[in-house]
Amino acid sequence: MKKVSITIKEIARQLGISKSTVSRALRDSSEISEETKQKVIDLAEQLNYYPNPIAISLLKNRTQTIGVIVPDIANRFYSSAIGGVEDIAYSRGYHTMIYQSHELLERERSATRHIASRRVDGLVVAISSQSENIDHFASLQEQGIPVVFFDRVSDAMHTHKVRVDDYKGAFDATEHLIKRGCRRIAHIAGPKPVSITRFRLEGYKDALRKYGIDFQEEWVLHSEITQAGGTERTYQLMALRERPDAIFGASDRITMGIHWALRQLGYKMPDDVAVVGFCDIAMSSLLDPPVSSVTQPSFEMGQQATSLLLDLIESKNTPAEFETRVLQSNLVINKSSMRH
Amino acid sequence: MKKVSITIKEIARQLGISKSTVSRALRDSSEISEETKQKVIDLAEQLNYYPNPIAISLLKNRTQTIGVIVPDIANRFYSSAIGGVEDIAYSRGYHTMIYQSHELLERERSATRHIASRRVDGLVVAISSQSENIDHFASLQEQGIPVVFFDRVSDAMHTHKVRVDDYKGAFDATEHLIKRGCRRIAHIAGPKPVSITRFRLEGYKDALRKYGIDFQEEWVLHSEITQAGGTERTYQLMALRERPDAIFGASDRITMGIHWALRQLGYKMPDDVAVVGFCDIAMSSLLDPPVSSVTQPSFEMGQQATSLLLDLIESKNTPAEFETRVLQSNLVINKSSMRH
Repeated sequence: MKKVSITIKEIARQLGISKSTVSRALRDSSEISEETKQKVIDLAEQLNYYPNPIAISLLKNRTQTIGVIVPDIANRFYSSAIGGVEDIAYSRGYHTMIYQSHELLERERSATRHIASRRVDGLVVAISSQSENIDHFASLQEQGIPVVFFDRVSDAMHTHKVRVDDYKGAFDATEHLIKRGCRRIAHIAGPKPVSITRFRLEGYKDALRKYGIDFQEEWVLHSEITQAGGTERTYQLMALRERPDAIFGASDRITMGIHWALRQLGYKMPDDVAVVGFCDIAMSSLLDPPVSSVTQPSFEMGQQATSLLLDLIESKNTPAEFETRVLQSNLVINKSSMRH
Repeated sequence: MKKVSITIKEIARQLGISKSTVSRALRDSSEISEETKQKVIDLAEQLNYYPNPIAISLLKNRTQTIGVIVPDIANRFYSSAIGGVEDIAYSRGYHTMIYQSHELLERERSATRHIASRRVDGLVVAISSQSENIDHFASLQEQGIPVVFFDRVSDAMHTHKVRVDDYKGAFDATEHLIKRGCRRIAHIAGPKPVSITRFRLEGYKDALRKYGIDFQEEWVLHSEITQAGGTERTYQLMALRERPDAIFGASDRITMGIHWALRQLGYKMPDDVAVVGFCDIAMSSLLDPPVSSVTQPSFEMGQQATSLLLDLIESKNTPAEFETRVLQSNLVINKSSMRH
């Protein structure tokens, strides 16, 4: 199928001006009056003629479009955060284009190349677990396309960042398990390179330390952010000679895997094994027993990251200092950890 | 923040040609040789200079980008279908931009305007439940941007369509419940305007008819595609003087709501009430009891719709006839309907 082509010629004919004037108007040439530019653009839009939207939007030097890249749109945490991004973007007159990296560096790079070539005004991103190198984001920033990180952030780049207090969330979850009488508390952590994995691991370790419980290397296993990962690691943990009496899962997918595996293996939650996860609350209430979880303000994270991004886009100057906002998580206690 | 501007001047200087030649090369003027055009584009890319990607891609008259619009990315059916879209698009050298309509006509229209203005090469879409009027898609097609429907299709437009045999899926589910001894089978259907709602309702009715069971108006309730909708409708159904002994849910969200409500109300599945849904299989196996469900080849639907779309984009001619592919669903039986 061929695109319908209404040419510059047609616009020139209808307005009674030269083709070169139309062309220069669309390129925002300073030789053409604002009035003529506006006439040309109005007619181009009326004719459904989008020969060069970039040129049109150059009039205000923006495309009114932002990109958002997340590892996995099916993950409730990210789909909810995207809801927050769209909420702010829409209310401030921006379109949102969504990309997913599938946790692959190459896909993430491909998305940033696309964003650069399409002259998107800015980017909100949660970094893929493979991306220890984030030069592709730095390159966007150098080209004048601002980037704001949320959830998974990197120290390697100066920009605005919005994250949850993962350390405290993990500390609270572990402390709760200790207070319910658990002493052999395992942790199924996320992939090693991810910032939130480190923060959560530290919170877990510090809670053990506070209560004088020895940290044991074999009780911490790293996993992909998948249900299958959580299931496999749970089988590994329950096969240990000294079994854990509690498992703390670092994400909702992982926690769904823990829950499933324990039920398959015939363990009772919470009496045999108590479980706390970082979880979507709607999801965890459907499981039997419902799962205690550290909940995160995902929608609000998306909103705040986007507000910061749009401020960068609309400001003439680079800010003197970038901001890192740390939002609070909340431990919601359910039957899965309420050991008597 | 200002965009870094490396001007046409710089490209002209480095290549030792005039500014007007660079500009015409980027606009794909026939006065400029292919060789010169290529040099200009190569240097522009090397300098991270994207003054006019549209012009560049006009060389092949494409932006190598497709759009996909779904009602809700958090719905596992759609996120899996998007996986299929990306799979084919990526392997054939196209970028995928994802939009969600949130079931709102206005958001869907806004996305199609964006797609037109950004000269996306084509669109794969599952129509929002609000969109009885689909002029915005017809308008894209008229502008030479092909549109392929999947899952939720419309008769109002001639184009390729990929859907599941919803009629047969619903027929099979209802017949299975009848064979397990259920006689008062309720159906929580989706929103009325949606194509799949009608197909599923017909399948349900025809199965009742085949076994000589009277259809009862009050046992069919329409609901939003949400867990809350499924929950509310279940409360309504169980409050009826003559209670249903089975509920067939038209989507996974609705079925999650049915499951939750029945547990809250203290009914046992399947003995008090048998349940079958249209469901994500990973999800339904986590529930207790696991839910019987009509599963759909969502990933494959995304793949097939995208193959058809890319063929339209890459073909010089409009096809003589458009195709409607109907894929088969599969009834997976689980404990929730295995009444003795």
